[in-house]
Amino acid sequence: MNITLEKVKDILKNKDNFYILTHQYPDGDTLGSSYALCMALQKMGKKAKVLSDPFPEKYNILCKGVKEEQFLPEYIISVDVADSQILAYSLKEYANKIDLRIDHHALGKNFAKLEYVESSSAATAEIIYNLIKMLGVKIDKNIATCIYTGISTDTGCFKYSNATPRSYRIAADMLETGIDANNINRIMFDTKSRSRLEIERMVLDNIEFYCNSKCAIIYVTLDMIKKANANESDLESLASIPRQIEGVLVGITMRQKEDKSFKISIRTDEKINSSKISEKFGGGGHQCASGCSIKSDLKTAIKELVNVVKDFIEE
Amino acid sequence: MNITLEKVKDILKNKDNFYILTHQYPDGDTLGSSYALCMALQKMGKKAKVLSDPFPEKYNILCKGVKEEQFLPEYIISVDVADSQILAYSLKEYANKIDLRIDHHALGKNFAKLEYVESSSAATAEIIYNLIKMLGVKIDKNIATCIYTGISTDTGCFKYSNATPRSYRIAADMLETGIDANNINRIMFDTKSRSRLEIERMVLDNIEFYCNSKCAIIYVTLDMIKKANANESDLESLASIPRQIEGVLVGITMRQKEDKSFKISIRTDEKINSSKISEKFGGGGHQCASGCSIKSDLKTAIKELVNVVKDFIEE
Repeated sequence: MNITLEKVKDILKNKDNFYILTHQYPDGDTLGSSYALCMALQKMGKKAKVLSDPFPEKYNILCKGVKEEQFLPEYIISVDVADSQILAYSLKEYANKIDLRIDHHALGKNFAKLEYVESSSAATAEIIYNLIKMLGVKIDKNIATCIYTGISTDTGCFKYSNATPRSYRIAADMLETGIDANNINRIMFDTKSRSRLEIERMVLDNIEFYCNSKCAIIYVTLDMIKKANANESDLESLASIPRQIEGVLVGITMRQKEDKSFKISIRTDEKINSSKISEKFGGGGHQCASGCSIKSDLKTAIKELVNVVKDFIEE
Repeated sequence: MNITLEKVKDILKNKDNFYILTHQYPDGDTLGSSYALCMALQKMGKKAKVLSDPFPEKYNILCKGVKEEQFLPEYIISVDVADSQILAYSLKEYANKIDLRIDHHALGKNFAKLEYVESSSAATAEIIYNLIKMLGVKIDKNIATCIYTGISTDTGCFKYSNATPRSYRIAADMLETGIDANNINRIMFDTKSRSRLEIERMVLDNIEFYCNSKCAIIYVTLDMIKKANANESDLESLASIPRQIEGVLVGITMRQKEDKSFKISIRTDEKINSSKISEKFGGGGHQCASGCSIKSDLKTAIKELVNVVKDFIEE
């Protein structure tokens, strides 16, 4: 059942002993929003605890000011979780026990007893900000660090089109508490692992250009992943690399999966419909970003892709 | 003579036929601020014109809505120019004729007849925003695009510590005029020339690690610049690359100059005083960012640098 934020506030005021659950591959918004809510509840004299798995070290700045407590849950809240299937593996036991979902994902599935979903928010952290204000809790530097991190990471540091005037204004309010936004953004955006560096080096070394340099292709094979000792987060957002190059209208990123097929990410200039390209391979997506899968060896897959892309570029 | 923004407003209301001058290697703030001011003056029924040299193509989005007019100047304003010496070469003839300087650089030199310098502004565009409001001109989408671009580029898309709550709030107001901030930021931050890509590929290929990987060194030789066909803007902000790597406390970027000496940029973790390292080579700077020059061949220069850096890391 969908409820209002006013009702969410009333519930939080009345309940106690909260478990707050985050989504798998936790990011700055699910963690920032959860810790902000947790600290606000603790400031109200309640018991609250964030559950995440794993907890990447770079998010340590979000836990400053959180009291660690052991207790049994009486009320379970999921934060920024679009689907109970994407709870972290070790949190799966809670999938059917979630009392309240707070989220901003428009396409999420209803799975909690009560739901508050506000898809106009760039980040769940914006909802949490409003909620904490309604709860009458003062937003201190620790809470502000969490809210700022949630908004900044979900908007690509205010770069993406989901950032609204409200996103900027909440960020301004958070800055006024004295947070070190420069340090937050350095940790979130300007820190690369050695493995990530190695992967970037390798993809730049073998980047290929087609269609008069209007199409750029990078690829990551299982062999490269092994050589670079790269994990999932080292391979994130590689897809933006080929599309960034001047003159490139179609940027393609190919990633070999365990079954030897290639997961293909296609990013295009707005003049070219990316999803139409992916549809030719049984995939889909949006105007400028789409994906599909190809079961061929590298050379054949590239050939098949270029064959389709050239028609779209020539049109 | 320093004057108030109120006085600047009065002058602009009374004068006409404005030339607006930008600084050399023009960036998003000098151009965005200048074009915003130019359009505001034109909206007041006055003649105004921005002079820049060169005008990089990526800033085309700033000129939408500007009327091109030919006229002789009666009042000359420099915008975001810290020193008359940094006017573009072809604008040098105006160096001693500047009636009014509007700027945010704290360390700039007084050179105009009248000056308004507000160093608490992250970008000159923030000053121009206030000025246009005082002039009573409505900020439309075209002007807003210019002001947003100035603030965004001078704060590294809100990443740097110079971004204040005011920077975010003005950006929010600009968004409300309907500008495409996502497109602006894509053009300003996520577009790489082929030469830039080639330079990045080469520096990643020969990156060197020292002091248990706590020091990373990249270098760009004259030979590499020639091979990549790179110009000045392709070589911008390479210095952030080595410092971004996880575990690196000292990131060094070496660039060979025409006289074969190396220009050294040093970026450090806040625990290490970067300027103290540069001072050992006759340079200087700030806690986390400094620079110096070394007249040696590549291998010797690296050896000299590592020799000094290791003491700072071990401390």
